Amino acid sequence: MSHLFRLVVSCPDRLGIVAQVSGFIASQGGSITEANQHSDLATGRFFMRYEIQMDTDASRAEVLRQAFRPIAQRFEMDWALHDASRRKRVVLMVSKASHCLVDLLYRWKAGELDCEIPLIVSNHEDLKPLADWHGIPFQHVPVRVDDKETDFAEVERLVDEAEADCVVLARYMQILPPRLCERYAGRIINIHHSFLPSFAGARPYHQAYERGVKLIGATCHYVTEELDAGPIIEQDIHRVSHCHTPDDLVRFGRDVEKAVLARGLRWHLQDRVLIHGNKTVVFA
Amino acid sequence: MSHLFRLVVSCPDRLGIVAQVSGFIASQGGSITEANQHSDLATGRFFMRYEIQMDTDASRAEVLRQAFRPIAQRFEMDWALHDASRRKRVVLMVSKASHCLVDLLYRWKAGELDCEIPLIVSNHEDLKPLADWHGIPFQHVPVRVDDKETDFAEVERLVDEAEADCVVLARYMQILPPRLCERYAGRIINIHHSFLPSFAGARPYHQAYERGVKLIGATCHYVTEELDAGPIIEQDIHRVSHCHTPDDLVRFGRDVEKAVLARGLRWHLQDRVLIHGNKTVVFA
Amino acid sequence: MSHLFRLVVSCPDRLGIVAQVSGFIASQGGSITEANQHSDLATGRFFMRYEIQMDTDASRAEVLRQAFRPIAQRFEMDWALHDASRRKRVVLMVSKASHCLVDLLYRWKAGELDCEIPLIVSNHEDLKPLADWHGIPFQHVPVRVDDKETDFAEVERLVDEAEADCVVLARYMQILPPRLCERYAGRIINIHHSFLPSFAGARPYHQAYERGVKLIGATCHYVTEELDAGPIIEQDIHRVSHCHTPDDLVRFGRDVEKAVLARGLRWHLQDRVLIHGNKTVVFA
Amino acid sequence: MSHLFRLVVSCPDRLGIVAQVSGFIASQGGSITEANQHSDLATGRFFMRYEIQMDTDASRAEVLRQAFRPIAQRFEMDWALHDASRRKRVVLMVSKASHCLVDLLYRWKAGELDCEIPLIVSNHEDLKPLADWHGIPFQHVPVRVDDKETDFAEVERLVDEAEADCVVLARYMQILPPRLCERYAGRIINIHHSFLPSFAGARPYHQAYERGVKLIGATCHYVTEELDAGPIIEQDIHRVSHCHTPDDLVRFGRDVEKAVLARGLRWHLQDRVLIHGNKTVVFA
Repeated sequence: MSHLFRLVVSCPDRLGIVAQVSGFIASQGGSITEANQHSDLATGRFFMRYEIQMDTDASRAEVLRQAFRPIAQRFEMDWALHDASRRKRVVLMVSKASHCLVDLLYRWKAGELDCEIPLIVSNHEDLKPLADWHGIPFQHVPVRVDDKETDFAEVERLVDEAEADCVVLARYMQILPPRLCERYAGRIINIHHSFLPSFAGARPYHQAYERGVKLIGATCHYVTEELDAGPIIEQDIHRVSHCHTPDDLVRFGRDVEKAVLARGLRWHLQDRVLIHGNKTVVFA
Repeated sequence: MSHLFRLVVSCPDRLGIVAQVSGFIASQGGSITEANQHSDLATGRFFMRYEIQMDTDASRAEVLRQAFRPIAQRFEMDWALHDASRRKRVVLMVSKASHCLVDLLYRWKAGELDCEIPLIVSNHEDLKPLADWHGIPFQHVPVRVDDKETDFAEVERLVDEAEADCVVLARYMQILPPRLCERYAGRIINIHHSFLPSFAGARPYHQAYERGVKLIGATCHYVTEELDAGPIIEQDIHRVSHCHTPDDLVRFGRDVEKAVLARGLRWHLQDRVLIHGNKTVVFA
Repeated sequence: MSHLFRLVVSCPDRLGIVAQVSGFIASQGGSITEANQHSDLATGRFFMRYEIQMDTDASRAEVLRQAFRPIAQRFEMDWALHDASRRKRVVLMVSKASHCLVDLLYRWKAGELDCEIPLIVSNHEDLKPLADWHGIPFQHVPVRVDDKETDFAEVERLVDEAEADCVVLARYMQILPPRLCERYAGRIINIHHSFLPSFAGARPYHQAYERGVKLIGATCHYVTEELDAGPIIEQDIHRVSHCHTPDDLVRFGRDVEKAVLARGLRWHLQDRVLIHGNKTVVFA
Repeated sequence: MSHLFRLVVSCPDRLGIVAQVSGFIASQGGSITEANQHSDLATGRFFMRYEIQMDTDASRAEVLRQAFRPIAQRFEMDWALHDASRRKRVVLMVSKASHCLVDLLYRWKAGELDCEIPLIVSNHEDLKPLADWHGIPFQHVPVRVDDKETDFAEVERLVDEAEADCVVLARYMQILPPRLCERYAGRIINIHHSFLPSFAGARPYHQAYERGVKLIGATCHYVTEELDAGPIIEQDIHRVSHCHTPDDLVRFGRDVEKAVLARGLRWHLQDRVLIHGNKTVVFA
């Protein structure tokens, strides 16, 4: 029975890494079906991602990890060996706007997003029917201006309880508390509705309209404590002109946001995104 | 003999403008071959640009202007009637980088840019051979750190002497003094090598590299006193990834800069760009 | 009470059309809030579309049409005056693939597509739950290889009964009979999953894969008797590479198809698409 | 002294290739600075390209080739080890249109195209001044309708004499004879001014205009005996509308052609393009 593993590595660049790792994989009877590498010349760091096909089953994963450890130690690797059959658990957080949720759930149903969705959390009830129709548990946790701490404690409890590998802010419109950002560092994905670093913060389409830009954009990034400043995963743009009102910008923007978030999440789920300082290496 | 005029108007939006203007044109025997209009709902301002074909010659222009004046006054118009056969005089200002100049001169020779180029000014001598080959006068005006005032006075004298309708900063890399910006307001076009408002100021590709953006861009805008903050005419982007070094960004950026500047200048030469506060209406 | 009308005209190009039409609108107290015109030099045909705001109500439409008739006759116009408050009735036809339907229904709910959807017709039952959730009647009309005539007679009966202004083939995957194409000429919109005229006919993504193209596309067009040869409304593309399998092409293609169909339909609903021989004028 | 080699391989896909090749490189003291691999699942063929940095000089190349031969034989590889310091010799063939030539020569001068240009061949004399200014030999070989054979024999003699590694048809507008296509198979690059397979053959922009497409394109491909049917290296498009005349399409097309040809040639020069049947693997 053929099984797919993904090996993801970053380490100081050194002679012989590829030979060692690919030799190891061959010695285990693995076939490399997709390979990506990157040497960052500025920092001297090396990144790699291998898709490995092997005649085995999921139980082999732990054995492989044990066997790989000495190589990992020698090269001072940050690394993970993922069993592709173990689908990541993704908690979606939304507010009132439905476009990203509709899009993600469509893609999930169509098989484009290989994950579990154990929970949708929202500070409003508007999108509950959509969750219901897809058979996904929906939790309404209002965020009160005067007691955010309590409310976010509840959010955190729910995310923990759902055993989330990853949290997606699909236009959640609330700023997560530092503690949550830190505990799920590198695992919370946000879609910001501007071409960052332009127009960080609130009402970016209106900022863009005021400035008279000719392109608007959206940015998918990992959430860090600093607002809209985390590592960027993906961006895209849409052309606008003087004809377009702020409402048109919002409408075009929805399409860009959906597309950018879906691509970023898909890559994250396939372990294609490696964080490097405040930047990303994306083996798309 | 058929002759082309361009009527460009902006005024407070009011009922009947189109009827009055098009009635006037018909009464003069003019045929509207291209028409563009825009009502800005936020400010209540109306913009229009007509291309008018008429069996006449250039001498008719002044007669038409006289005849149009009463309508213009009634509707409180900012307006101009351009004779398309009168080619604008464009002074190009460059530094060492050749890409924009090579591109503009190619397009000029190929007939894509309908203008005169009476002069190229540069603070370096590197691009003189290119100017020579095209038979365009080239003036080297070094900009000394300790006496910019004198040097820019010389630049201004040359631009005046060339009877410039328009000045293009084709990667000139110097900040023009306020006096020059003001005297040629709405007629100095700059190409900035970033997707403004991201990365205004110096070394934008290196700023972009540091931030880890996934798209880089360029912006063509009118120059105002405030650096990189004038009305945007055109923007475009190029996709980049973690593979790309700052040098790659510079290389991709050159292509975007050329394209964006050439489009912006072409539109300006054809009277397609109307300034509206710190924004533009572009009838492309 | 302010009311929106749309006047759409095509006629032989002649001096004074704009003056006459805009004069008429002003005389009726109408304000032109959006104007588009196009003179086709090759054929000497003139096209225009005006959005007209008027302090009146829908009942005024017929009065305006009566008053406009003499002008229309003088200039030999093909024309229509649409009351924007009368939403077009759109019948959607689908097969098994859900992506276009999900997208159209999302946009319809979000207010991006200003129309009624009285009916969804399908040759399969797969998408019935989606129709149900949106509260739209769903008719399953199987198309039998050996008795298409009867089946399409039933389809035609349903479309007629729904009083359809427009039929959208949202990946219907069946070829409509000539009679239906003719009766609803200029009102049936199809999405073809290739960048026409490349790869007309069946399995275009596989054709594209075999040819080794580097971009795939989709085309939204009006349906005519000749397969995939009708007037093109909109097209777009997605970049692909040697890495991508036919399945990837299909996946990317879904996104392009959705976007292109939604844009084409939106423009059609707003009377922005004028047919000119086998081409379109799109005042987008 | 650090030296750059490029190893390019295609062979039947088999377990252990990467391990063998990367082991070999490590054993020779080489550092892999860029690595690309592709397994074509449909045909079971494997492709790889490594950039290898080594503390040595060009004289090492032949030694490396000798040492690699046994591995190559065992895996039945088509392969080449290129010394990056040996610049390819590119013969440019042009007709009257200057845009591609201007662009290629600019990029060559700017260091974007790492090659020698020993010769420009043309069937017209128009572009000789451009060749002269860049100090590149220019040969005018008219192609007579009634004696193409003799003329192409002369072209072939010149290309041979120039010891061309590669021939670029930069809008040459003549069909090369089969003999030349065959002798330089995989080394003649053409730019076709349409989005192939749409509009192969003559006057593609006019074909596109007649069909009413909304995007026009250009295709860079290797030349084979069958006209416009060789392996595609790169394609791109430009949006057009009903406003645009065939002349506009030609003008937009020039920009797309330049960009697509320059990208394709750059990749070819860096040994990034591997031919696979009638398709290409491009490690861009």
